Amino acid sequence: MDSDRYKRGLAKFNEIDGRAGERIIEAMKDIAPDLARYTIEFPFGDVYSRGILSLKEREIASVAALAALGNALPELKVHINGALNVGCTRLEIVEIMIQMAVYAGFPAALNGTFAAKEVFAERDSSGQEN
Amino acid sequence: MDSDRYKRGLAKFNEIDGRAGERIIEAMKDIAPDLARYTIEFPFGDVYSRGILSLKEREIASVAALAALGNALPELKVHINGALNVGCTRLEIVEIMIQMAVYAGFPAALNGTFAAKEVFAERDSSGQEN
Amino acid sequence: MDSDRYKRGLAKFNEIDGRAGERIIEAMKDIAPDLARYTIEFPFGDVYSRGILSLKEREIASVAALAALGNALPELKVHINGALNVGCTRLEIVEIMIQMAVYAGFPAALNGTFAAKEVFAERDSSGQEN
Amino acid sequence: MDSDRYKRGLAKFNEIDGRAGERIIEAMKDIAPDLARYTIEFPFGDVYSRGILSLKEREIASVAALAALGNALPELKVHINGALNVGCTRLEIVEIMIQMAVYAGFPAALNGTFAAKEVFAERDSSGQEN
Amino acid sequence: MDSDRYKRGLAKFNEIDGRAGERIIEAMKDIAPDLARYTIEFPFGDVYSRGILSLKEREIASVAALAALGNALPELKVHINGALNVGCTRLEIVEIMIQMAVYAGFPAALNGTFAAKEVFAERDSSGQEN
Amino acid sequence: MDSDRYKRGLAKFNEIDGRAGERIIEAMKDIAPDLARYTIEFPFGDVYSRGILSLKEREIASVAALAALGNALPELKVHINGALNVGCTRLEIVEIMIQMAVYAGFPAALNGTFAAKEVFAERDSSGQEN
Repeated sequence: MDSDRYKRGLAKFNEIDGRAGERIIEAMKDIAPDLARYTIEFPFGDVYSRGILSLKEREIASVAALAALGNALPELKVHINGALNVGCTRLEIVEIMIQMAVYAGFPAALNGTFAAKEVFAERDSSGQEN
Repeated sequence: MDSDRYKRGLAKFNEIDGRAGERIIEAMKDIAPDLARYTIEFPFGDVYSRGILSLKEREIASVAALAALGNALPELKVHINGALNVGCTRLEIVEIMIQMAVYAGFPAALNGTFAAKEVFAERDSSGQEN
Repeated sequence: MDSDRYKRGLAKFNEIDGRAGERIIEAMKDIAPDLARYTIEFPFGDVYSRGILSLKEREIASVAALAALGNALPELKVHINGALNVGCTRLEIVEIMIQMAVYAGFPAALNGTFAAKEVFAERDSSGQEN
Repeated sequence: MDSDRYKRGLAKFNEIDGRAGERIIEAMKDIAPDLARYTIEFPFGDVYSRGILSLKEREIASVAALAALGNALPELKVHINGALNVGCTRLEIVEIMIQMAVYAGFPAALNGTFAAKEVFAERDSSGQEN
Repeated sequence: MDSDRYKRGLAKFNEIDGRAGERIIEAMKDIAPDLARYTIEFPFGDVYSRGILSLKEREIASVAALAALGNALPELKVHINGALNVGCTRLEIVEIMIQMAVYAGFPAALNGTFAAKEVFAERDSSGQEN
Repeated sequence: MDSDRYKRGLAKFNEIDGRAGERIIEAMKDIAPDLARYTIEFPFGDVYSRGILSLKEREIASVAALAALGNALPELKVHINGALNVGCTRLEIVEIMIQMAVYAGFPAALNGTFAAKEVFAERDSSGQEN
C-alpha cells in the first residue's frame, strides 16, 4: 500500500481540481479502481507535489499540452478549471489558447477557446468569480 | 508591408531565442522567405508581444506543447533555449518534461528530457551559466 | 491596426466559408476577440490570399490535413463546406477521405467520411446543389 | 472484382465485430461505397486473415493503438467489442487502458476507460455475458 | 494472387515516385515482403488509380497530411518528390507548407519546408529541372 | 521512499528490456534522476507487474501504440527488443506493423518496420537467436 502517496495526491488533487476532477475519478471507480488510484498517486501524489514549478505554472503547462494534443476535451476542461483555481485569470487561459495557434495550429486554438468558454459559463452559473 | 509587426517581432524573437532560432529563420530564407517573415510577424510580432502572460509563462506553455506533440525536435530545442533565456532554470525545464509524462506519456517525457540534455550541453560548451 | 489584412481576410473568408465559418468566429468574439481577428488576418488575409495554389487546391490540402489529424471536427466540417464552395465536388471530398486511409489509417478516413456526410445533409436541407 | 478478398473479409469482419461494426459500414454505403468495400477488403480480407497473431492479439494491438491515438472514438468502441468477441475479458480491456497511461498519458487512458465503460453497459443491456 | 492490382499499382507507383519510393519498397523486402506488396496494391493499385482527383491533387493532399502529422519524414520526402513528378512546382510545395502553419502550427510548416529543401537539393544534384 | 515499487520495477524492467532500456535510464540519471526513478516505479513497478495480461500481450500493446503514435523511435526500439525478449517472434513484430497500416496509415507501418529491421540487425550482430 502506498498510503502516503495517495493521501498527498488526494489533497493536491482537491486543491487544484475541486469538484471538476472528482467526477472523472468517480466515473472510473466501478470498472477501473486501480486506474483511479494511479491517477491520484502518480500525477498528483508524485508530480504536482514536487514543487520547483508553481501550481499555476504547472497548470499553464497542462492546459497548453492538452489544447495542443486536442484529443482529450474532458481533461482539458478539468485543467482549465484547475488553472483558474490556482491563480490563472480567464484572460490568461485565453492567452494560452492564442499561443497554441502558433504551435499546434488554429483549429487547436479555437477548440481550446471553446472549451474555455464552456468552463467559464459553468463557473458563472455556479457563482464563481474568476 | 507590415513593417511594424515585423520589427516588433524581430526584437521579441531576439530577446527570446538569441542565436538558437536564427539558424531556423536563415535556413528558410532562400526557399521560403515569406514563411520566414510570417514566423517573425505572427508568433513573435503578434502573439509573444501581447503581454498578459509573462515570457517565462509563454515559454513554459511552448515547451510543454512541443514536448507533448513530440514531432518537432528542432523547435523544441529552440524553445528550451528560449525558456532558459527568459528566466527558467534548468531544473524547471526538466520539471516540465516530468509533468508531460502525465499528459502525453513517458516516451514524450523522456525524449523531451534528452532534447533538454543536448541544449544544456550546448549552453555549457558556449559558456552560458544557466 | 492591420486594417488591410483584416479586410482582405474577411473578403476571402466569406468567399470560401460563406455561413459555415461565421458561427465559429462569432462564438469566439465575446471571450477571445483577438483570436477571432487573428483567424481572419493570418489564415485568410495572409495565407489564402497568396495565390500560387488555387482555392480548390488549398481546400484539398486543408481537408486532407484536418481529416488526417482527426482532432478538429468543427473545423473539418467548415473546410468541407469551403471546398464545396470553391469548386470541389462531393465525390472529390469523399476521394480525399479515401486517400487519407493510406496516410492516416482507416479510422481517420471513416470519421472524415462521416463528417462529410453530415455536411452534405446540411447542404441538401438548405437547398444547395453540390 | 476482388470477390475472394471481399468474401474472406466479410466473414472475418462478422467473426470479430458482430453487430457493432456493421453500423459503420452501413453508414458509409450511400456516400462512400468504395471505402466501405476497401474497409472489408484490406483490413479484414488481407490483414486480419493473415494468421501469425491470434485474433485476440490483433485486437489487443488495435485497442491499444486506437486508445493511444485518442482521435477515433467510434472505431475504438467497435474494437473493444471486437476484443471481447474474440476472447478478451473486460478486465483485460481495462488493463490495456492502464498500460496506455504509460505510453500516451493519463488522458488517453481515462478516455479509453470511459469508452470501455460505455461498451460494457451496452453489452450488459443486450444480455451479453462478457 | 492479386496480380492485376499489383501490376496496376506498380505502374502507378513508378509514374509518381520514380526512384525515390523504390528505396522504401526495397528496404522492406527482406523482412516484410507482404507489407511491400500491400503498399503497392492498396495505396497505388487501388487508391491512386481511381481517378476523380488528378494525381497532382492527390499529391497535394498527401504532402499536406504528411506535413501536418509531422511524424513520417521519409514518406513526406517521397511525396514531395512525387508531387514534383506529377506537375507541382517547387513554389507550390512551399505553399502547401505555409498553409500547414494554419492547420498544424508553425513547427509542422517549418519542418515540412526543411524536408522540401532537402528534396530540392537532391533533385538539383541529379540534374532535375523542377 | 518507495523502495518496494522501485525494486519490483527494476526486476521487471530487467526481465523485459535487458540491456536495451538501460541506456535510456542511464542517459537520464545526471539531469533527471527523479524521472529515471519514476520510469522504473510507475510503468514497471506498478503497471507491468500487475498480471492480468501476459508480458507478451503487454508488449504487443506497447509496440502497437508506439508504432501508431510514430513520435518516439528510441522507445519503440526498446519495446521491439522487449517484445522479442518476452516471447514474440520477429514475424509477430512485423505483423503488428502490418496491422498498424490499418489504424495509423502506411507511413506509420513502414517506419515501424524499419525500426524493427534495425533492432533485428542489432540482435543478429550480438548473436541473439530471435
